[in-house]
Amino acid sequence: MTERVNEHERQARAALTRVVEPGDEHGGRWLRELGAAELLRRLTSAPHEDGILTGVGDLRLQGYRKRAARADPERDLAAVAACGGRFVVPGDPEWPTQLDDLGDARPIGLWVRGRSDLRRWALRSVALVGARACTPYGAHMAATLASGLAERGWVVVSGAAFGVDGAAHRGALASGGATVAVLACGVDVVYPRGHTQLIARIAEQGLVIGELPPGSHPTPSRFILRNRVIAALTRGTVVVEAEYRSGSLVTARAAQRLGRFTMGVPGPATSGLSAGVHELLRGEAELVTDAAEIAELIGDIGDLAPARRGPVLPRDLLDPAGARVLEAMPPRGTTARTDDIAHDAGTTTDEALGRLYELHALGFVERHGDRWRLTRSATHRPDARRGGP
Amino acid sequence: MTERVNEHERQARAALTRVVEPGDEHGGRWLRELGAAELLRRLTSAPHEDGILTGVGDLRLQGYRKRAARADPERDLAAVAACGGRFVVPGDPEWPTQLDDLGDARPIGLWVRGRSDLRRWALRSVALVGARACTPYGAHMAATLASGLAERGWVVVSGAAFGVDGAAHRGALASGGATVAVLACGVDVVYPRGHTQLIARIAEQGLVIGELPPGSHPTPSRFILRNRVIAALTRGTVVVEAEYRSGSLVTARAAQRLGRFTMGVPGPATSGLSAGVHELLRGEAELVTDAAEIAELIGDIGDLAPARRGPVLPRDLLDPAGARVLEAMPPRGTTARTDDIAHDAGTTTDEALGRLYELHALGFVERHGDRWRLTRSATHRPDARRGGP
Repeated sequence: MTERVNEHERQARAALTRVVEPGDEHGGRWLRELGAAELLRRLTSAPHEDGILTGVGDLRLQGYRKRAARADPERDLAAVAACGGRFVVPGDPEWPTQLDDLGDARPIGLWVRGRSDLRRWALRSVALVGARACTPYGAHMAATLASGLAERGWVVVSGAAFGVDGAAHRGALASGGATVAVLACGVDVVYPRGHTQLIARIAEQGLVIGELPPGSHPTPSRFILRNRVIAALTRGTVVVEAEYRSGSLVTARAAQRLGRFTMGVPGPATSGLSAGVHELLRGEAELVTDAAEIAELIGDIGDLAPARRGPVLPRDLLDPAGARVLEAMPPRGTTARTDDIAHDAGTTTDEALGRLYELHALGFVERHGDRWRLTRSATHRPDARRGGP
Repeated sequence: MTERVNEHERQARAALTRVVEPGDEHGGRWLRELGAAELLRRLTSAPHEDGILTGVGDLRLQGYRKRAARADPERDLAAVAACGGRFVVPGDPEWPTQLDDLGDARPIGLWVRGRSDLRRWALRSVALVGARACTPYGAHMAATLASGLAERGWVVVSGAAFGVDGAAHRGALASGGATVAVLACGVDVVYPRGHTQLIARIAEQGLVIGELPPGSHPTPSRFILRNRVIAALTRGTVVVEAEYRSGSLVTARAAQRLGRFTMGVPGPATSGLSAGVHELLRGEAELVTDAAEIAELIGDIGDLAPARRGPVLPRDLLDPAGARVLEAMPPRGTTARTDDIAHDAGTTTDEALGRLYELHALGFVERHGDRWRLTRSATHRPDARRGGP
């Protein structure tokens, strides 16, 4: 758990996110065989020294080398730090190990904006995806499902696009819940522009993540490859509205291949925007119509029961900042305002709010209007100050 | 195939439809153990002679005896004949042997109005059922699916109720297809009254059938028990719109238990009238959105391929009247009007029309506007007059 990532290795991985496109399995294999620092060294040294970089043609190898020569990881790491972010790599405590299921297509690292712990959020997350040009019905369903999932302590993951994605993020935010936007561009780049405020709010209250280094712009293939991260990160993927051959079906099929739950929201048989979902439902996907059905499906195996059944993590696995905020909660049955909790925890209101959302997602606390209280099960703890279980 | 039913036995069964309610398994067991004539004899003789009529209380047995004393099968058989109908019993060539899957709950016999052969129609039939108070979407889907199924040569079976049932019958009729109404009352009783014209048209162009003797009125339990006949008669049941705990779900579950295909048409997750269907789809039922999907599902096993793959029955199994109409069809590739075909077959236009619908359902002929022609596969026959295959 406390394994430290070599900072040299982290910097090399940061450089490689500028060299190797998301999902490139050649790059992934080299990375696995050589480690990031050695791979970067070979890509930036004289051509005759990269002998074992096999599997791709000369022209393509030249492309890698060209990009490697131009990479400036210190600048990128500084840029993400400047917008309050960080670069998380395999081996970090915050690394969501679910992504390891992607094998050589695993992200090299993730650029992350937001205060919460990505690994813990991912543990109880569900993806809500669907058409950009959705119908009012699709937007309504996305918002309602997201809101209901957030209220149950689930983290809603989506792609920050117009339509279903946006409605899902907004639904989660509206009920004071946790949400993660997985971008197909740099986490400092706003795409689509119409979602400037929404993405800023997600970065504030949730997490904005992506594989691409700061300043990178989305491309069609990056959108498609981003979808595998959404699928792998979450316990399951719900498709709300999707035409035949839509990108959302790519996410759903990736989820299926990865052994995640795949779900679809039915719609009128007469709607082209439900045709893709219905095709999915005629296969392996499960039909869902409300948040309770989703929670029942994805929450009933393993150790990841829904919030109402208690926290996901033992409290001694909380990080110190989260543990301090939990300590500062009033006794069971009473509520407190965020600033009072922040005061008792010896931190800022902003920091406390971020931690409270995290504790909420983990099932320790519940929100009541603008106040917070412990969940029933969160009070079963050996804490003399609060009077024990 | 040519086994003749003893007319004494047929009359006894006709009497018993007035004594034993649909689906009564005690009655069914007695019938199986004793035969109809002997069962009726015991029910109408002095009480001490009915020694082996066991399994029900005295009071209930008195009820059977009272109804048996009042039964007048000759009057009932005359009444059904008066409205152009007949009484079909197990052992008759027209008996749909699928109903035998109901075991002791098998109908004692079926009162039938309409010209076509029930057994042959049932062989390639599919049930379309759903809510009486359906939405415009539900009515649209029922009509569209029925129409598409009829065009593919499938016989559409439903319950003649308002809403989905009515839309299904009308959709089949509108595309010149075959349809069967299974009533929960006597076939000479019109229920609901608002469907007087529809039921008359089904009796004219299709079949109106039921377990209850002439003049019987529907009751809630008769509606529910009628559903098992719809389920058993058909290759599969499609539920179009249904609330939780609706009668259509009873039909679907009966179909499931009987090993028939069970299908549901999805709708908005926000619609209470789709909630029952979605519940079904979360179980074993298959999601379907158009007639092609239904036909693919129910048509791809056994010897009951859709019409486009050719007739279901070898032509030498056609009854003489059907065979004469088929003989009177013009050569492949040309069409003829109903009255010309009737003339060549030496019969009335009405009779020819009924036979043509039957041949259509069986995959021998196709309709083009108000004209008819042979299907491609119907022409493969050793018929010198038409010039051979």
